[in-house]
Amino acid sequence: MLSQFHVQTRSRNEWRCITDDIERIVRESGIGEGICVVFVPHTTAAVTINENADPDVPRDMVLALNTIAPDLDAFRHSEGNSSAHAKTALVGPSVSIIVHKGRLLLGTWQGIWFTEFDGPRTRTVYVRVLGDR
Amino acid sequence: MLSQFHVQTRSRNEWRCITDDIERIVRESGIGEGICVVFVPHTTAAVTINENADPDVPRDMVLALNTIAPDLDAFRHSEGNSSAHAKTALVGPSVSIIVHKGRLLLGTWQGIWFTEFDGPRTRTVYVRVLGDR
Amino acid sequence: MLSQFHVQTRSRNEWRCITDDIERIVRESGIGEGICVVFVPHTTAAVTINENADPDVPRDMVLALNTIAPDLDAFRHSEGNSSAHAKTALVGPSVSIIVHKGRLLLGTWQGIWFTEFDGPRTRTVYVRVLGDR
Repeated sequence: MLSQFHVQTRSRNEWRCITDDIERIVRESGIGEGICVVFVPHTTAAVTINENADPDVPRDMVLALNTIAPDLDAFRHSEGNSSAHAKTALVGPSVSIIVHKGRLLLGTWQGIWFTEFDGPRTRTVYVRVLGDR
Repeated sequence: MLSQFHVQTRSRNEWRCITDDIERIVRESGIGEGICVVFVPHTTAAVTINENADPDVPRDMVLALNTIAPDLDAFRHSEGNSSAHAKTALVGPSVSIIVHKGRLLLGTWQGIWFTEFDGPRTRTVYVRVLGDR
Repeated sequence: MLSQFHVQTRSRNEWRCITDDIERIVRESGIGEGICVVFVPHTTAAVTINENADPDVPRDMVLALNTIAPDLDAFRHSEGNSSAHAKTALVGPSVSIIVHKGRLLLGTWQGIWFTEFDGPRTRTVYVRVLGDR
């Protein structure tokens, strides 16, 4: 099953939890045992999995990535958002999650995060659930 | 087929080779042609693929990641392990490997590494093998 | 369907667009709805997805990664290419892309990039397309 949904981001850099959206899609797919591929079709935003408990974690992650991949004077890309492209290369465009008994097999503290690096924008997320009923 | 196994890490930061565990699970799955998704259900540990020949490579990788994602004074997360969360975002929670003729299709020098960033802890790894016999 | 092809890189660090190669393999697979796993069987090269429009983007990404993961005096690996191994850990060995109506479901600006960190070399890329006709 293939699904998509939209995320409206509000800041230049923002981590938005999308676990509930993905969980709903897995449930609607009727797939019991398989995998779920979450794919972000953008070049200045990405997707990853990290703690979804203390809101200071996504806040610290924005700070960490700004520090790891800052704007560099030597960048030439005329849109001026090469640091956003670099963060995208570091975090990556897709994650694959195991589906078991019709649910995402996530750890206790894990959430799925849409990571915006050049917002605010209206973004799209694609989800493919693959496997058996 | 879905499997899991445990890894007991011994240091704060440690790369542990888990290729043999994954290879065994693929063999037991009976899948001949498909893919294998390795997933780490933690938020301060990850999984990747890198050289498994010279032990100085995983040693240098621990050093590289400590340098790339150090503790920052501005971090607020009260557990004090935000750098471990940042390393997890950089390395990622899952890898997908091709299965061919019932074996992992890895390159000559590649091994699969469980990467601990906040050990020592007892950790879990999930493995889904998908495909045809 | 499993396929492979070769990439001849020309520089120490180089981003080479391989979208057309992957698109051709997906078409030849006859798979209509599924996923495509692109896997790089090397330990000093990786694969990712990023903008394929302005050539300054891959140029800036080489610069960004050289800055993020430089050579460190404390590295011990005797081949002297630990920074290439570190870049590989950051970018990752595989990407999973959704296949829909027999095509890669990429965003408007996205291309698939083979990222060389220790060239020039002749490299291999493995591709598995999984799903239904």
